[in-house]
Amino acid sequence: MKRKLTLKHIASELDVSISTVSKALRDSSEISEDTSAKIKAFAKLYNYKPNNIALSLKNRKSKTIGVIIPEIVHHFFTTVISGIEHVANEKGYHVIICMSNNSFDKEVINMELLANGSTDGFIISVAKETQQKKDYHHLKEVLNQGMPLVMFDRVIDEIECDKVIIDDTIGAKKAVSKLIEIGCKKIGLITTVDYVSVGKLRTAGYFQALIEHGMKVDKSLILKIDDFEQSELEIKNFLENRELDGVFAVNEHFAIYAIKAFQEKGLRVPQDVAVIGFTDGELSKQFIPSLTTVSQHGAEMGAQTARLLIKKLESEDSDEEVYQTIIIETGLVERNSTKKDFTLSF
Amino acid sequence: MKRKLTLKHIASELDVSISTVSKALRDSSEISEDTSAKIKAFAKLYNYKPNNIALSLKNRKSKTIGVIIPEIVHHFFTTVISGIEHVANEKGYHVIICMSNNSFDKEVINMELLANGSTDGFIISVAKETQQKKDYHHLKEVLNQGMPLVMFDRVIDEIECDKVIIDDTIGAKKAVSKLIEIGCKKIGLITTVDYVSVGKLRTAGYFQALIEHGMKVDKSLILKIDDFEQSELEIKNFLENRELDGVFAVNEHFAIYAIKAFQEKGLRVPQDVAVIGFTDGELSKQFIPSLTTVSQHGAEMGAQTARLLIKKLESEDSDEEVYQTIIIETGLVERNSTKKDFTLSF
Repeated sequence: MKRKLTLKHIASELDVSISTVSKALRDSSEISEDTSAKIKAFAKLYNYKPNNIALSLKNRKSKTIGVIIPEIVHHFFTTVISGIEHVANEKGYHVIICMSNNSFDKEVINMELLANGSTDGFIISVAKETQQKKDYHHLKEVLNQGMPLVMFDRVIDEIECDKVIIDDTIGAKKAVSKLIEIGCKKIGLITTVDYVSVGKLRTAGYFQALIEHGMKVDKSLILKIDDFEQSELEIKNFLENRELDGVFAVNEHFAIYAIKAFQEKGLRVPQDVAVIGFTDGELSKQFIPSLTTVSQHGAEMGAQTARLLIKKLESEDSDEEVYQTIIIETGLVERNSTKKDFTLSF
Repeated sequence: MKRKLTLKHIASELDVSISTVSKALRDSSEISEDTSAKIKAFAKLYNYKPNNIALSLKNRKSKTIGVIIPEIVHHFFTTVISGIEHVANEKGYHVIICMSNNSFDKEVINMELLANGSTDGFIISVAKETQQKKDYHHLKEVLNQGMPLVMFDRVIDEIECDKVIIDDTIGAKKAVSKLIEIGCKKIGLITTVDYVSVGKLRTAGYFQALIEHGMKVDKSLILKIDDFEQSELEIKNFLENRELDGVFAVNEHFAIYAIKAFQEKGLRVPQDVAVIGFTDGELSKQFIPSLTTVSQHGAEMGAQTARLLIKKLESEDSDEEVYQTIIIETGLVERNSTKKDFTLSF
């Protein structure tokens, strides 16, 4: 049986990274001549065919959009997908989804897979690992070959392409300002490590709100989480030794874990501590107390990415290099977790 | 610009359904000769190429699995996908996901799209509309062309292929038996309309549990929901005029809506009414009271579908027609919503 040789096969055969193979085959100066020559010889020997996207693009339209997301278990990404599906269907496009599972290698492989004739363009929110490594050659390459790419949520400043983001910093600032307005004096922040772009931006919003209201920033009230799996325990331990009357969390899971940790300590939310989350998912809506949250408008975000991509795909002048960044305004959805005068109805 | 002609174009051009086009091109006797001739002439004129899967299959392996699911917003399907991804990655396969949004037409189009060289085989949970129409020609066709197909959750009895299901009826019976054991006398059922296979099977489990415990079946205690969007309101109205001390709901949303409706009536869960759901999602875990639920083991289900498919793809004798149905045993995850002696800690 004849198998199609992929970047992955070459990488594992020569014991180098997928990124190295990909760069070597594109004559990147980052790769040593020796390694580069070896990789090219191997590719030639086994008749590896890189994607000739540029060649085929003008003649063929698959009417298919490739979507690459970091993970599927977060409600936010599923709402973005429904927004993409909605617009794509209206305009007669199909949607194919792949997941990177936050792995750089999987992201590169998925792009190779989908660029290989199945799709006309990409919508992508990059993997955590890609942001950490700062290796964007696969994104640049797709763009260089004339294939449109729209980034959303986790975007890369260094890459010039259409982007759809929310005002993460402003959204976070709104949330923390709300906590200050209802009288919170010691406000904790539960966020992600800094290399996750949205976590960093939301952290900046927390600082801005405190500073603008003349409040002191106390770094001991900030918890930065790296491993999502451990977050419930980390939040519990963090809150155990801290006296807070308000918490802003950068996603809804962190916020719910915080509420539970407070309840275990015998504190009432919102009477003793007010809590605000980010992302308006089912948990925020259904939880008791229902969670005040910064809404990211995921479906609207997805719809905008699809509109931008389809516009590029259907524009006559495909060499036109005008890129747009659409900023979706966040809204604060006020529910019971910030109503200081709230009483439980049972 | 030359566009690839698809089933959808032909259907809209000739004002017939996608299913009719697909059947006519395969010489189905279900389509009148006149219509069939018209469709074939159009396809020939515009050079439509149906998928020649059988021709290419023996020579080419894309090492890619196509997954078609009805929707993505249900936690259950996202856990199945993570199970599929896990096994596929281990075995060196890629995963491409498409959504039918419960539409028959979209399901047919997605299969056409993915069968067209991008994937080696399918994992599918069929759309609600496909079950309603009982039109399975697209599934049969893929199988006839020698492309392996594994169905999960919403499976079709009439189609012979590998299947992974849970013991829906036994799971439901376990749940209702639990309610009877803790002393419930008037147990309501919140389920789906009968054409959704899993809803029907779970309803059967409800009947079996009551009958085996010598309890009378009262059909006025059963609510069958068709439109998910309206479910919260329907459940509220249904429960308003009924005196129940237990409720079994066939998914976690229905269960949470029931708890909220009871709380609005001034009833306490679990002290006055016990509630059990189906599907062990985040809502069930995080809600207060936490929800007792029948666990479907979605990740395990996904892992099994991927194993079955890859086994078929890699078997030497691909003409072998031995199909397996793996039944994943459900478990009852007992939480606070059925603890009659439970007291809220705040």
